[in-house]
Amino acid sequence: MDRRSFLKTSALGGTAAAATSLAAPAIAQGKRTLTMVTSVPDGFAIFDDAAVLLAQYITDMSDGQLTVDKKPAGAMVGAFEVFDAVSSGQADMYHSCEYYFLNQHPALAFFTAIPFGMTAQEQANWYYHRGGQDLHDELSSMFNLKPFLAGQTAMQPGGWFNNEITSAEDLQGLRFRMPGQGGQVLGRLGVSVQNVPGGEIYQALSSGAIDGAEWIGPYADERLGFQEITDIYYASGFHEPGSALSMAMNLEVWESLTPAQQKIVDVATRAVFMTNLSLSLAENGAALARLQDQGVTVRQFPEDVWDAFGRASAEVTEENMGDPIYKKIADSYFASLEESASWYEQADGEYMRQRNRVIGL
Amino acid sequence: MDRRSFLKTSALGGTAAAATSLAAPAIAQGKRTLTMVTSVPDGFAIFDDAAVLLAQYITDMSDGQLTVDKKPAGAMVGAFEVFDAVSSGQADMYHSCEYYFLNQHPALAFFTAIPFGMTAQEQANWYYHRGGQDLHDELSSMFNLKPFLAGQTAMQPGGWFNNEITSAEDLQGLRFRMPGQGGQVLGRLGVSVQNVPGGEIYQALSSGAIDGAEWIGPYADERLGFQEITDIYYASGFHEPGSALSMAMNLEVWESLTPAQQKIVDVATRAVFMTNLSLSLAENGAALARLQDQGVTVRQFPEDVWDAFGRASAEVTEENMGDPIYKKIADSYFASLEESASWYEQADGEYMRQRNRVIGL
Repeated sequence: MDRRSFLKTSALGGTAAAATSLAAPAIAQGKRTLTMVTSVPDGFAIFDDAAVLLAQYITDMSDGQLTVDKKPAGAMVGAFEVFDAVSSGQADMYHSCEYYFLNQHPALAFFTAIPFGMTAQEQANWYYHRGGQDLHDELSSMFNLKPFLAGQTAMQPGGWFNNEITSAEDLQGLRFRMPGQGGQVLGRLGVSVQNVPGGEIYQALSSGAIDGAEWIGPYADERLGFQEITDIYYASGFHEPGSALSMAMNLEVWESLTPAQQKIVDVATRAVFMTNLSLSLAENGAALARLQDQGVTVRQFPEDVWDAFGRASAEVTEENMGDPIYKKIADSYFASLEESASWYEQADGEYMRQRNRVIGL
Repeated sequence: MDRRSFLKTSALGGTAAAATSLAAPAIAQGKRTLTMVTSVPDGFAIFDDAAVLLAQYITDMSDGQLTVDKKPAGAMVGAFEVFDAVSSGQADMYHSCEYYFLNQHPALAFFTAIPFGMTAQEQANWYYHRGGQDLHDELSSMFNLKPFLAGQTAMQPGGWFNNEITSAEDLQGLRFRMPGQGGQVLGRLGVSVQNVPGGEIYQALSSGAIDGAEWIGPYADERLGFQEITDIYYASGFHEPGSALSMAMNLEVWESLTPAQQKIVDVATRAVFMTNLSLSLAENGAALARLQDQGVTVRQFPEDVWDAFGRASAEVTEENMGDPIYKKIADSYFASLEESASWYEQADGEYMRQRNRVIGL
């Protein structure tokens, strides 16, 4: 999508705004319910856990002034329709993943995860302290949205495959579920990429409509039951080294909140980011052990497959760099990544090597 | 301190409680100011940043119902006197580091950091999802306190030395500033350990009263100016792989808050944990580069020094295991560490190796 399309979308948002903003002053003084549409069914581990926690924090902290009414995927709009629904004012806010909306703008990928990009911690460094949040605001404001990170799944595994991947050749013709830029990368390597919502993956995999899928991680994947279909699980993946979940509010709804209510929303999203990330990492180890007990074998991609992923990822990034907004965000993102990675390696990297060696972890 | 001593302290707390709780219902309905005593001077990077942010979040989210009035070290009570001041009701809350109070109870160390223990992320996994917070509540309630984690400095470097450390022998007789269990470990290796508050380290180091010191990390250390005194800086350290800052509220003050105010305090501390940790990690890389430009050389301890740290750390932990409360908390802590470390290594560990190799970070 080019700049003109943004402006057009932005103008549309402006129209929606005019319609809803009349009521705002009255609303701001009283109790109100905010409708939050989401992209997964109720009860989906990690993803829906974050949405539930966010709704609860906002409701509880505002002492009844704001009640967040969460709508699962499909209840009001479909899993991938939440962006448009909130942009247009049909719903007040969404909880989802920004990379579901790359057809709106490719740079939204940076606010979930990109191939060979930041881990969850590196993303937080950038987002909260190196300009990431301002860039997110700037991008989403074109769609009449006020965005936040609101959850983090941690590094997502390579995923579930029907057959072992011994070389990049094995990817040819594979029908694999992967959204975002990761999917674009697999497309370049000959994969037939499927963007299936979370609630439909199990069915697609068990019916043979797809040959493999990645979802979130051992804990969330176990709950969906993929281990009943295949026992080949790749641990580390190139595609989502730390995927943020996000919340975005219709911009006029946001502006109608009091300063204290806005602070409650902001702080709630930060707390959810951390609490959700640590939930994933607290649960994944135990879940992996249970999966292995059920016969799942855990593998890693060979180095030449990582190399192929790397080449295709560089091509996808390079292609997107033609968009000036994408380039502006990418430059900020990669500068922060480079800045923080070196200290992390010298500090935590060395520590974890020495600790695991000395105490035998 | 043994169990009897707890009960005695707890009973003292109870007396203080009776004196203040009469006013609580009236206080709970109106605006109130909470006095928060801290252990560092105003403006101390990372440490005071967390205290400032916590005060601001609570004040802003409560829309004027609660105002947190932060008092720097020495303004009301000394840096290490904040625990007793809040336990007794002299102040409403403190922002500090739990391991400053090991003379109250050795198990408080788990709520800052312990040698060869958890990184910041591993601590969050345990604290928020594997029972750590409940154990913290249980321990601090004996001192009439309701505790929270409220900040994270990230992994703390080995520190600043006047001479290079080529073997464990070089530690003999060194006068080194290190609090917590890390200090106890150095003591076993022949170091004369000094527990100097943050605000006094520069003076102690520049006057020659101590031979070396660790503080927080490149960003915070740079601000204190240690690079003006010595140019030998050890990057990774054994002693504080991820040090939490903490806030504790007098238990009767906590109980006098409304449910919405309690939720505001809880969520604010979680947001501060994440925001503070990412601040450290966003700033440390750039700060390290600046320190190196000023002639600081960055080193790592040799493996046999790590081994010596490891042996002495195991002895310190083992000695503390005689205390049943310490043992209960340690068992929970190490079980969680073991559970989460394996997945992290297979997922993030493998990813970071492959990413840094493929894209040349």
